[in-house]
Amino acid sequence: MVSWFRRSRLRTPAPTLPSRDTATAATRVDLHELTPATDVFLGHCAALHLTFFEQLSHAVANAPRVAEKDALAQAAATALARYRGLVAEMERLKLDTTAVMEPHLASVQEFERRTMGADWHEQVASAHVTIGFLTDFWVRLGAGLPRETRENVETALRVGDLEQPLHGIVEKAIAANPRLSSRLALWCRRLVGDTMLQARSALVVHTDRARDEEQIEPVFTELIAEHTRRLDRLGLTA
Amino acid sequence: MVSWFRRSRLRTPAPTLPSRDTATAATRVDLHELTPATDVFLGHCAALHLTFFEQLSHAVANAPRVAEKDALAQAAATALARYRGLVAEMERLKLDTTAVMEPHLASVQEFERRTMGADWHEQVASAHVTIGFLTDFWVRLGAGLPRETRENVETALRVGDLEQPLHGIVEKAIAANPRLSSRLALWCRRLVGDTMLQARSALVVHTDRARDEEQIEPVFTELIAEHTRRLDRLGLTA
Repeated sequence: MVSWFRRSRLRTPAPTLPSRDTATAATRVDLHELTPATDVFLGHCAALHLTFFEQLSHAVANAPRVAEKDALAQAAATALARYRGLVAEMERLKLDTTAVMEPHLASVQEFERRTMGADWHEQVASAHVTIGFLTDFWVRLGAGLPRETRENVETALRVGDLEQPLHGIVEKAIAANPRLSSRLALWCRRLVGDTMLQARSALVVHTDRARDEEQIEPVFTELIAEHTRRLDRLGLTA
Repeated sequence: MVSWFRRSRLRTPAPTLPSRDTATAATRVDLHELTPATDVFLGHCAALHLTFFEQLSHAVANAPRVAEKDALAQAAATALARYRGLVAEMERLKLDTTAVMEPHLASVQEFERRTMGADWHEQVASAHVTIGFLTDFWVRLGAGLPRETRENVETALRVGDLEQPLHGIVEKAIAANPRLSSRLALWCRRLVGDTMLQARSALVVHTDRARDEEQIEPVFTELIAEHTRRLDRLGLTA
């Protein structure tokens, strides 16, 4: 699918680029040419994970019952453990964690505000959708990092599991109140735009924008496919 | 100590209280006669710790800078670890954790709401003061639990350290803005009433109220002395 996109592009003239359409590219699409400098990557990713923690903590506070509070508190702890993993990597590299994260705070907080949702159900759906999407994205964006940092980042972002518990909570909420379905389906569709913008804001931009887009497109195609599967499993197909 | 109280009661007619100014009273006062049933104790204490987690998470979200967010996120994780310790004890005792915590949610959430504070500085001061006071209280209230549960509860409530990090954050905030002092001093004085009510709501009430008060008074005297020391160290002496 991805290679089909690229081949069809090579037939068209203009911004001709060296073909990256090889078997390796097809089996593993990543964003290694668009990975920012290590400190920028870590600062942004860590700031974002603090935001994930905050988002999940709000959901804990607003959860109607103990069972949901408990599950969301675990999820918040997982987000925090991932954040700590990223901080540990900054410390290993002797980076000033505060200085490195600070420039990204305003943007991730604005993102958090925009994707917060009007009530608890939307908050949990947001957390599920945006954290799922952005974690997958950030793992792929890590492809261009120095090997040891890349491995440590991947390990940090794979700590625990957020996908299943968040899926479980949203699924149960919909089962208890089927009328939620259409509202949450609409809300999750709306989230994609802001989430993609947040992801794009982390990419290095080259003068050759068309070539950047060639690398971006297949990755986002995959991420959106994964997003759709996530909603499918909740019966929230777009 | 307790038997001394009892004997002296027999000698005195009514509301006159025996002097508590003895060496033993000074070394160990607890609330073992007022400890509620194990499930009530654990349910209330765990619900309260979820609230501590929420309170600290709000403070993370509202913190102005990364350094404070980071420190508060650690504090929130500590509160959560203590909560998990209490849940683990409920599970060891085969209690239905949700059913046991649920009856206490409304009251602890109302407490959280009342002690929330108007801005981030008040939030952090609240967390410092109320968590400090109530943790000391709950350890003493555990005195009447079966031995193994008592030890497990004490271990859970002693996980990590909240006192120093929260003290450090409030201290730094006051140093950066000395005008905060008088406002926070006032706010912390106001907190004592609600915090004591929250503590008292956990006590078993006997028909002989005067005798209950005999056990309560020395404990609250100590807790308030500790509260005053906490504020002293911040230069917020009442």
